[in-house]
Amino acid sequence: MQIRPIRWQDDALELLDQRRLPQEEIYLALRDYRAVGQAIRDMVVRGAPAIGITAAFAMVLAMDHAAAQSDWRHALRSAAEELRAARPTAVNLAWAIDRQLALAEHCKDAAGARAALLAAAEQLLIQDIADNQRMGQFGVQVLPDRGGILTHCNTGSLATGGYGTALGVIRAGIAAGRDWQIYADETRPWLQGARLTAWELQKEGIPFSLNVDAAAGHLMATGCIQAVIVGADRIAANGDAANKIGTYSLAVLAHYHQIPFFVAAPLSTVDFAMSDGSQIVIEERAADEVRNCGGQAMAPAGVAVRNPAFDVTPAKLIAGIITERGVAQAPLREGLAALRG
Amino acid sequence: MQIRPIRWQDDALELLDQRRLPQEEIYLALRDYRAVGQAIRDMVVRGAPAIGITAAFAMVLAMDHAAAQSDWRHALRSAAEELRAARPTAVNLAWAIDRQLALAEHCKDAAGARAALLAAAEQLLIQDIADNQRMGQFGVQVLPDRGGILTHCNTGSLATGGYGTALGVIRAGIAAGRDWQIYADETRPWLQGARLTAWELQKEGIPFSLNVDAAAGHLMATGCIQAVIVGADRIAANGDAANKIGTYSLAVLAHYHQIPFFVAAPLSTVDFAMSDGSQIVIEERAADEVRNCGGQAMAPAGVAVRNPAFDVTPAKLIAGIITERGVAQAPLREGLAALRG
Repeated sequence: MQIRPIRWQDDALELLDQRRLPQEEIYLALRDYRAVGQAIRDMVVRGAPAIGITAAFAMVLAMDHAAAQSDWRHALRSAAEELRAARPTAVNLAWAIDRQLALAEHCKDAAGARAALLAAAEQLLIQDIADNQRMGQFGVQVLPDRGGILTHCNTGSLATGGYGTALGVIRAGIAAGRDWQIYADETRPWLQGARLTAWELQKEGIPFSLNVDAAAGHLMATGCIQAVIVGADRIAANGDAANKIGTYSLAVLAHYHQIPFFVAAPLSTVDFAMSDGSQIVIEERAADEVRNCGGQAMAPAGVAVRNPAFDVTPAKLIAGIITERGVAQAPLREGLAALRG
Repeated sequence: MQIRPIRWQDDALELLDQRRLPQEEIYLALRDYRAVGQAIRDMVVRGAPAIGITAAFAMVLAMDHAAAQSDWRHALRSAAEELRAARPTAVNLAWAIDRQLALAEHCKDAAGARAALLAAAEQLLIQDIADNQRMGQFGVQVLPDRGGILTHCNTGSLATGGYGTALGVIRAGIAAGRDWQIYADETRPWLQGARLTAWELQKEGIPFSLNVDAAAGHLMATGCIQAVIVGADRIAANGDAANKIGTYSLAVLAHYHQIPFFVAAPLSTVDFAMSDGSQIVIEERAADEVRNCGGQAMAPAGVAVRNPAFDVTPAKLIAGIITERGVAQAPLREGLAALRG
């Protein structure tokens, strides 16, 4: 059993529609880069690494479009800017687009660029899975041997090329025989925990229970949780980490209860050009995501909403950042720089 | 405009069905005490003070049943025990039942007892509204004059006889011209914030916005919140307070951000027989409340769930408990005892 959220088939990018999980497993076949941008915006695919890989493939589709224009390099750059605007917080989106753009610039012609972009996207997908598996091995060494492990949002196969970041560490630990009970936050408003993490854990028979986000404090106070592990959408050079809304609350709660709080993310998530988290743009999403629940209007029509999709956890609350090259520990700025090499 | 969640009409207890708000405003007319117990269990009516008042009226219906039995006193006591089991955490349920039982014991005959129980229930409803209004006046004096006020769950007219506890303080502050922006947690799994608090605040034109529970930390860290105010379902003699799941997380977050955290509750919510919060029974509710959202199955079928309905906030995290007789401040054990008189 291997969950494949992103695949390339018959000259189309196929995305497992994550809005419809776990009820339906449906792939959308996209042949237009603009449709991929919309799919990222609409959360067909989400999770920073998965968004990065999706964008890399979208650049192949952008190349298909650009090849028909008089100046393909110019057209590709325009398409790249459109794609970049799809979501602001995850660094992997811009990272993958810039990498593909640089690659295309060095190609002689459109056909060569197209082939190079496709090969690079496929390589990125394979590399991501391999990196996640290494991350898993490193993570297992720093997490406690037994007890409750709380996670937030979905950081599994569905959020990446496969295997997962924080959920990859959980997979690796269970495979290594760790005596863990997993606690999954449901993660409103999109319920990535209830819909996606629960689906992945159930498929693999990993022992877990689901809880509302607000129960985290109570679970910690009653001794259920021995560690917290989450992913990240963008990590500043000093270790401040942007991740799904609610992550920061968990970090403060873990700090209060003296429970270690870990972030698992590939080094591509670290934005070394950004000194600290204060500069991270936090996406504010549509009010209806909060007014509605399960597609049903729950709040009165027209109520005002605050819907920040992410928050920033300061480095001082993070026990370690687990990457594919090892675990950065405090001081995180130096730790991350050393791993970057 | 006055919201009346509980009313007595034509020998029936009428409850505004809070499961259907804000979409529909429908009263259920109940003539059987057992149906009232079920309505409490099913969250037709919720909120500790409202449950207490409902139970007081349910005892009138229990008396209607008992009067037809050979030993009406015995039958009333049996019915009382059935009602008491409806929900374990809110002290007001047991408090109102015991009060009514003691009253009936002193009556000569069933007809006299019935009349006394009805008069007492009606008095309890009137008194609750008056107490809440007094609580509001006391609360306004201890909350900051301006800024963001975060609240959790619903503690308004719908949770009480009318006006509300924590939401009553908010009503009183807005009426007194306080420059407040209210932040309402949606409060999964039942969404009392999104459905009920939003409905009450919108009806009164009080400026507010709705957010997912997990956003509280981010809102505090970004300077949006100057105080937190919540209700309580049971307060131990030392000030430890059980309230809707997520309250404890808010208290820890407020502590970390040096934001004052207040509880508003009538003295009837204080269980002076209970020394501290470790003895409070936390109700664990059905898994489907978490698996579902807006009546739709969201999580995969059959996943394990932790669904504690309440948590306990230790006294040390509480800046003050606002009651109808004044505000208890640290040390709360002495403060509450002094208010009790």
